Amino acid sequence: MSNNKISKSVIRRLPRYYRFLCELEEKNIDRISSGKLAEIMRTTASQVRQDLNCFGGFGHQGYGYPVSKLKNEIIGILGLNNNYKAVLVGAGHIGTAIAAHMSFEKLGFNLCAIFDNNKTIIGNTINDVLIHDSESIADYCENNNIDAAFLCIPKSAAPEIVKRLYDAGVKNFWNFTHYDIQGEYSDVKVENVHLSDIIMTLCYSMNEEKNE
Amino acid sequence: MSNNKISKSVIRRLPRYYRFLCELEEKNIDRISSGKLAEIMRTTASQVRQDLNCFGGFGHQGYGYPVSKLKNEIIGILGLNNNYKAVLVGAGHIGTAIAAHMSFEKLGFNLCAIFDNNKTIIGNTINDVLIHDSESIADYCENNNIDAAFLCIPKSAAPEIVKRLYDAGVKNFWNFTHYDIQGEYSDVKVENVHLSDIIMTLCYSMNEEKNE
Repeated sequence: MSNNKISKSVIRRLPRYYRFLCELEEKNIDRISSGKLAEIMRTTASQVRQDLNCFGGFGHQGYGYPVSKLKNEIIGILGLNNNYKAVLVGAGHIGTAIAAHMSFEKLGFNLCAIFDNNKTIIGNTINDVLIHDSESIADYCENNNIDAAFLCIPKSAAPEIVKRLYDAGVKNFWNFTHYDIQGEYSDVKVENVHLSDIIMTLCYSMNEEKNE
Repeated sequence: MSNNKISKSVIRRLPRYYRFLCELEEKNIDRISSGKLAEIMRTTASQVRQDLNCFGGFGHQGYGYPVSKLKNEIIGILGLNNNYKAVLVGAGHIGTAIAAHMSFEKLGFNLCAIFDNNKTIIGNTINDVLIHDSESIADYCENNNIDAAFLCIPKSAAPEIVKRLYDAGVKNFWNFTHYDIQGEYSDVKVENVHLSDIIMTLCYSMNEEKNE
């Protein structure tokens, strides 16, 4: 697979393609035209054709794209079939919501364990995944070759937890905190989710309209 | 203020500048150089100077930027001082986390009410904000001139709730569901938060490294 050629902006759109293709497959739709796919993606047919041409032009003029084949191709490119091993740290409201409602396997991860320091919930499960004591996080990750951690903890707790994870070989983070992981560790991959920044962006759009 | 000239990519960075400037202010730091600010933002000093020049060049060579003044300027551009009126719909785990932990006022919004259809929690409060019955959402929003809604509900509930909100004059959404609001209503502003897409993007980065 020649991933190298695929631009960052195409990659950013792939999860959306994947989501819509899963929905089409659930509706037993076999083929879809670039025009129809563009409509769902709210873009142009030519953008869709250009995007999908990046990784093998298997749409045929007049026939549209084969839904399952296209979905599987995207699974391969995103690496959703790698079954990476992940842990989730912090079983507060956000952590619980994520552990309970995300289909991790569909998203490329096997959620192996949850960690929290609240003794009253240690031993409980969320979606069949056991909540362990945070004290055991380093040993667990080292012994189980954990690839990634989802951080749903307060910012103040992040430096210590990230250090333990990093020392135990975890180098990939999905970060809900405002702790700057990459500022501290240069060889990690991080996706930050800064909810407050997104709220401010909405505020800007509203303000912009007012100023027009 | 000449917002029109400011590019989308600068706007996307402003919330981060704002966050860091708030932190500097809390530490009683009055002035900061473009180099130091670049270090915190993990970018270059020239990028910082270019960004901040967009809205009035009030950094002076050798003196750095006045922290409070710069922060207030960004507040104005983002419109964080407009005190928009918002409601939050869905007091499940994610909704509760957001209502409990976000400093809405700092982010441009006044959270006026929470709505849920679970009778056992109606009448409770989260962070002093009352949980109302979802049945009353249209009347409430109309009577109180609500500007924005934060949707923390299942996708299946979204079409009906968004219709009620839209008909009651709410045109701005912060959307945690996969329901495509803009596909249905063209005159709304939406910030989508697709957590599953962000997980897949992390998966891609990890996969990419493997393929290198």
